[in-house]
Amino acid sequence: METLIKKQFCAIVGEDRFRDQPEDLISCSYDAFTVEAVPDLVLLPLTTAEISEILKLASKHRIPVTARGAGSSICGAPVPVKGGIVLAMTKMNRILETNTPDRYCIVQPGVINGDLQTELARSNFFYPPDPGSMAFSTIGGNLAQNAGGPRCLKYGVTADYVLGMEVVLANGDIIRFGSRNVKDVTGYRLSGLFCGSEGTLGVVTEITLKVMPQPAAYRTVLAVFNDLDDSAATVSDIIGAGILPAALELLDKVLINAVEDANNIGLPREAEGLLLIEVDGSEEQVEKELALIIEKTKKNNAVNIQEARTPEDRDNLWQARRSLYPSMARIKPTCIVEDATVPASKVPEMIRGVRSIVNKYELLCGISAHAGDGNMHPLIACDKRDHDEMERVEKAIEEIFELAMSFNGTLSGEHGIGIAKRKYLPMSVDESTLKFMHKLKQAIDPDGILNPGKAI
Amino acid sequence: METLIKKQFCAIVGEDRFRDQPEDLISCSYDAFTVEAVPDLVLLPLTTAEISEILKLASKHRIPVTARGAGSSICGAPVPVKGGIVLAMTKMNRILETNTPDRYCIVQPGVINGDLQTELARSNFFYPPDPGSMAFSTIGGNLAQNAGGPRCLKYGVTADYVLGMEVVLANGDIIRFGSRNVKDVTGYRLSGLFCGSEGTLGVVTEITLKVMPQPAAYRTVLAVFNDLDDSAATVSDIIGAGILPAALELLDKVLINAVEDANNIGLPREAEGLLLIEVDGSEEQVEKELALIIEKTKKNNAVNIQEARTPEDRDNLWQARRSLYPSMARIKPTCIVEDATVPASKVPEMIRGVRSIVNKYELLCGISAHAGDGNMHPLIACDKRDHDEMERVEKAIEEIFELAMSFNGTLSGEHGIGIAKRKYLPMSVDESTLKFMHKLKQAIDPDGILNPGKAI
Repeated sequence: METLIKKQFCAIVGEDRFRDQPEDLISCSYDAFTVEAVPDLVLLPLTTAEISEILKLASKHRIPVTARGAGSSICGAPVPVKGGIVLAMTKMNRILETNTPDRYCIVQPGVINGDLQTELARSNFFYPPDPGSMAFSTIGGNLAQNAGGPRCLKYGVTADYVLGMEVVLANGDIIRFGSRNVKDVTGYRLSGLFCGSEGTLGVVTEITLKVMPQPAAYRTVLAVFNDLDDSAATVSDIIGAGILPAALELLDKVLINAVEDANNIGLPREAEGLLLIEVDGSEEQVEKELALIIEKTKKNNAVNIQEARTPEDRDNLWQARRSLYPSMARIKPTCIVEDATVPASKVPEMIRGVRSIVNKYELLCGISAHAGDGNMHPLIACDKRDHDEMERVEKAIEEIFELAMSFNGTLSGEHGIGIAKRKYLPMSVDESTLKFMHKLKQAIDPDGILNPGKAI
Repeated sequence: METLIKKQFCAIVGEDRFRDQPEDLISCSYDAFTVEAVPDLVLLPLTTAEISEILKLASKHRIPVTARGAGSSICGAPVPVKGGIVLAMTKMNRILETNTPDRYCIVQPGVINGDLQTELARSNFFYPPDPGSMAFSTIGGNLAQNAGGPRCLKYGVTADYVLGMEVVLANGDIIRFGSRNVKDVTGYRLSGLFCGSEGTLGVVTEITLKVMPQPAAYRTVLAVFNDLDDSAATVSDIIGAGILPAALELLDKVLINAVEDANNIGLPREAEGLLLIEVDGSEEQVEKELALIIEKTKKNNAVNIQEARTPEDRDNLWQARRSLYPSMARIKPTCIVEDATVPASKVPEMIRGVRSIVNKYELLCGISAHAGDGNMHPLIACDKRDHDEMERVEKAIEEIFELAMSFNGTLSGEHGIGIAKRKYLPMSVDESTLKFMHKLKQAIDPDGILNPGKAI
């Protein structure tokens, strides 16, 4: 980038929020996916007006602009593959309003999901979407990826909570749509389009979110099975009984053992399946549901059932699920997390299919799933320096996607397309639909400066 | 339209699904809004392929095409203001699949909401959005308007239930997006954009919907208050106690008396406010919530409290709410139903403001509201042949919208923009955002043939 142009960008944000030193650039060159790319500049805007000025100037010179939250995505979405500018949104991290009587809050995109939860908890409210990264990922990033999480089985995903937005378009125009009203049908529902668009259509500068009263009580059950089909049958039985748990997490034998190796918490190593089930609601309701859940796990031959009624016990039970990634990372340096998703009833067949694929390619793969909504997470432990192994990983992933498609599933349930899955998109989205998505992108960002090479 | 072109359209659908006689055209010229317009042709397609052929031909000759469901909207959305073709979707009324274990169903757009409910109820499931028109309105129309209803306070609106769609674009291209998976982040989330676009972006030919297990139990409470503020305080207290009712309907004195005049069901005529509150869930939960709700109504000086535990009693309590429109229609021939929406805490101020506006213009207006989500329904009884009165109605509506805007509200919560509110859109949507919406429309439907003159 020419020095003169750099100076113009610097003039917009000021020197203390302008970065062009190698260490600054490298720190914005990656996420948790395997591809890295260094930008030319990092800018840390504070206001919508600054972002509008930045985009006007970037448009004029056709310089790519990639907005970045915490960089915790795992599909390469915030990696600036064409260089240009990274807009680090971390300084736009104010919670502008929380209004729990009217069930909304207004935040800047750099607010960390967990910080918003802490703030809302003061009024006994919460914001349901709970990606695994919630302790450090930003609401802007959650929105860009339409993030999910365990709780989304019961409560829905990020897009279900976005009431309104302010967005700066590629040409610097500022648009605002939606409102603070849960019901609002004035004009096109643009929040639906911008959610999950991975920063390719505009830079989001303000977000109005729907929030919910906290449930009065939780109950958590951990159940272990010697047969994977028994754990799957338990999932079906619970949902079939009309219970919609706030979490319904499945771990297979590989993961049970990886977690046990790392944490030594007493999980039975010979078990084939572990379910972590959580219900929330009124005291009366969760007690009743707890009893029903335990009945279902027993009926399906659970060999070990633990229940939690206190926050401390609940934390202990969640430890197995929470330590999945670090436990797998102890085994091999690279951990590839897939998230192909299938209709829930296909989970057992999908697990068997994935097992057979990874066995064929001689890969070490544990399988976890948000089992209630069919959102599978095969975790492949590998080493990205081992070329041969990575080729096998690649082949296995392609077959896993083909299998998911054969069950009317989808490539990604909650992680997004980013760079990682673009080449697989035609498996899931037909040619005319993809052409239509590109036409929309072309209409909205004609010079293609917004996060090029992502999402579609 | 030239005879030769008419013949070409006739060749696509066949003579028995081609209509050009005055009685056929007139029957597709109106909805429940005051504007009427007669199309040149009515076609009744049976397949996506036919619709694709129709749109290719219409594009070639730049003939407007307006898809029509039951025609029960109240904002003029399906009125073919530029003539051309009405696609009557009533023959595409098949439920293609219901899969309750995987919580989805796939329907054609002409399926009536109530028929889908009946089908799902066989498996103890339901589809939450429940517009007042649900007994006769179609899922396609519900989707075009992003319909709401009382239950949407707890369960969300139509857009929250659309998992996937098939759409025919203006040029005849067929696109499919979304899937059967509740979690799906592959490519742009187009369902968000098409929901509520009032048929201006494409003709929807297939819809995949999320469905829910039916709650085990309901409890319904009707409470009457001598002071409107007491009823509003009850609403706040209920929500503040962490209860999210499945319905929370408010009627003012004018409506209480109109309903009593028409039905003679024993409502106290001197009362200022009536609340109809319904909770659903497990037996234990609804019993507990019922007790809490009754406590709140008593605390706020309710003078008459009735509760329902059986389906028959529940039906009786709902009678007052359900008979609103016919009761008002007995008073004067034209009933204008507004649906300006405000954050829930502003409902009492909004009601007082609306009262003062309609008094100023000497109009007869009752006010109902989905009070829990601030979705107001002022009902103005008038006579559209009375020119002077209609001018006063017009002025009052404009002031009602201004008032809603002053509370950060919105022009329409669930009825849509159609023809009725287009001129007011700039009050709610700023210039650059409206320009952006028109740019999207231009990119998607460059000749502007799809339902021209609506939505934006």
